[in-house]
Amino acid sequence: MKVLILGIDGYLGWPLALRLGARGHEVIGIDNLSTRTFSEEVGADSAFPLPNPEDRVKEAKKHLGIDINFYVRDVNDYEFLKEVLRRHKPDVVVHFAEQRSAPFSMKDYKHAVYTLENNLSSTVKLVYAIKEVDPTIHILKMGTMGEYGTPNFDIPESPFVEVEIKGKKDKIVFPRWGGSVYHWSKIFDTDLLLYFNSLFGITVTDIMQGPVYGTRTQEIVNESLRTRFDFDETWGTVVNRFCVEAILGLPLTPYGKGGQIRGFISLEDSMEALRLLIEHPPNQGEYRLVHQFAEIYSVRKIAEIVKAAAESLGIETRIQNVENPRVEAEEHYYNPEIKVLPSLGFYPKKNLKDEAKAMIEDLLPYKERLSRFKHVIMPKTKWRR
Amino acid sequence: MKVLILGIDGYLGWPLALRLGARGHEVIGIDNLSTRTFSEEVGADSAFPLPNPEDRVKEAKKHLGIDINFYVRDVNDYEFLKEVLRRHKPDVVVHFAEQRSAPFSMKDYKHAVYTLENNLSSTVKLVYAIKEVDPTIHILKMGTMGEYGTPNFDIPESPFVEVEIKGKKDKIVFPRWGGSVYHWSKIFDTDLLLYFNSLFGITVTDIMQGPVYGTRTQEIVNESLRTRFDFDETWGTVVNRFCVEAILGLPLTPYGKGGQIRGFISLEDSMEALRLLIEHPPNQGEYRLVHQFAEIYSVRKIAEIVKAAAESLGIETRIQNVENPRVEAEEHYYNPEIKVLPSLGFYPKKNLKDEAKAMIEDLLPYKERLSRFKHVIMPKTKWRR
Repeated sequence: MKVLILGIDGYLGWPLALRLGARGHEVIGIDNLSTRTFSEEVGADSAFPLPNPEDRVKEAKKHLGIDINFYVRDVNDYEFLKEVLRRHKPDVVVHFAEQRSAPFSMKDYKHAVYTLENNLSSTVKLVYAIKEVDPTIHILKMGTMGEYGTPNFDIPESPFVEVEIKGKKDKIVFPRWGGSVYHWSKIFDTDLLLYFNSLFGITVTDIMQGPVYGTRTQEIVNESLRTRFDFDETWGTVVNRFCVEAILGLPLTPYGKGGQIRGFISLEDSMEALRLLIEHPPNQGEYRLVHQFAEIYSVRKIAEIVKAAAESLGIETRIQNVENPRVEAEEHYYNPEIKVLPSLGFYPKKNLKDEAKAMIEDLLPYKERLSRFKHVIMPKTKWRR
Repeated sequence: MKVLILGIDGYLGWPLALRLGARGHEVIGIDNLSTRTFSEEVGADSAFPLPNPEDRVKEAKKHLGIDINFYVRDVNDYEFLKEVLRRHKPDVVVHFAEQRSAPFSMKDYKHAVYTLENNLSSTVKLVYAIKEVDPTIHILKMGTMGEYGTPNFDIPESPFVEVEIKGKKDKIVFPRWGGSVYHWSKIFDTDLLLYFNSLFGITVTDIMQGPVYGTRTQEIVNESLRTRFDFDETWGTVVNRFCVEAILGLPLTPYGKGGQIRGFISLEDSMEALRLLIEHPPNQGEYRLVHQFAEIYSVRKIAEIVKAAAESLGIETRIQNVENPRVEAEEHYYNPEIKVLPSLGFYPKKNLKDEAKAMIEDLLPYKERLSRFKHVIMPKTKWRR
């Protein structure tokens, strides 16, 4: 297949390019390197030093023998996006080109506006470009389980649900509630894709993924093939941040009570799930919603697992709950359905316990580098007034 | 009170300025005149020729003795918006500065992106500017009854509702479904205001208004005080468009079966409702949702009423259903609650039957001008693929 990855330079984009390339697919990617820029903006950086795009492509060729076509451009350049679709005729476009940090979106009005404009406009432009060039192209878009908030309902793996309100029944989009402007941008994105699917018949896989952790995939066979790894308060997700805290002798810091429950997935399992969804597209004109996670944990439990992993490597650490900078339920019901990925033969091969140890091992050689960013790990971006 | 109107040059913005000025309120307004520009873009214009902003202000002074401070600027200029808040210290900001046409938002990707970016960014910037300058300022934002779509539920006049999904209960934002990118932008706007209200405690009146019709308010005592009046397929709402069709000898053209049911309100009643909501703000930190309409009609019935009004003035006309350019239910349940405005002492003084006649009388002297725009009245913007 031919796959165009928007956001190929990111944490998921790059290893997906390697996975698909290694499977013999033709890979084209676009990235404006905005996460590199934004990470610098908050005084942080990737734990692993990143080669520039040209070198990334060379290293992929050298170690894996695969060819990747990497354009350093903005997907919001509509004419360019259309030109790439015309030139490469992809079967599927993977849309990872969104601002993905909740704290980043809450810094001030500029970051809120940027997040909404970038995330919604890129989606709308992709839809119209596909409609113009080839309406049969499959869009695979990365959403987040966070779109649901923490409802008291079981969360079905389908966009619509039958509900009863004051004795009357109708089908509605499953209710969602955003915990940040970033989360709202993802909710709006999903609404727009549902709408355009109903209107234009475009083919969509919309993935609600849980937080991803990990440093390894089958294709990362050399340090030069590493994907970026964020661990600061703005860009680092919880497991990745905890591993670096352990290495730096900082306490592991669940926000608030730590009773927040989420579905997590390793980088390797995420890649495998994405490969399956790309190789097994939905029917033409179908909107397919997918829940993508492997294990369900509370943040408290995550901290305990990372602590044990660190200790198994002789690193002493402790857990210290800190004031929650976010507005979120710290104890709640959580029961999302998961059936689409299993129906494609997916089952997770990794678990947090083993992966946490592997992550710490992979990160330890970079301890000196990591220690330079100690000051951007603890939460400073506050949601509350 | 001091009232800042964003979008003061519009169909509702200008007569609201006159109404509030005549009531002794201090009125400040901002408008980038975008509706004038966009109307020209589609080859249309206001039925009544519009004075430029400077002359509008002079005429208001001359005929009503009121002072209006009119800034021709873009509310998306954040520093300017903040400066106006600092300088004038308004008690309430009326937010009418959104792209308000569904067909306009569906023309192509540029119009879709513009609508989303303009409408969402202006709301986010207003919230942050108020938070910075004075978080007690009341935001009165114009939404639309169209945000609900046509659900099989009774529509409560409150943002949240208790629902049951597969045996489990929780409170959710009342479900909505947009019929165009414009409608989605209004839905997202409401979500953002609900979120910022919960987060920052800003005070909001969010109005879900039905289509407005009419040419008259108490303050429009001279032709020079007229508000703009759109009647083309892009900017004209249904009653206004039908009146002009009648005058030009065109058939009245319900889209599809004409069974679409909406709540309508006259311009005069809309002004009175807005005045009441401004003079009676919600409690500090409250989000108040208001349904604003006066009479419920099907589009078919509207056509019959306008036809009868025209005939009472000796104008022969006929009704001709045309293919619906939109994707919408043409026969459906419709039962929205309305209690907030009545609780403030509001009751509608106008009805469509009398107003339709008055509108045709007011528009007749402009028949020659109207006939120049005959070609932009019939629907050309199609939603369907």
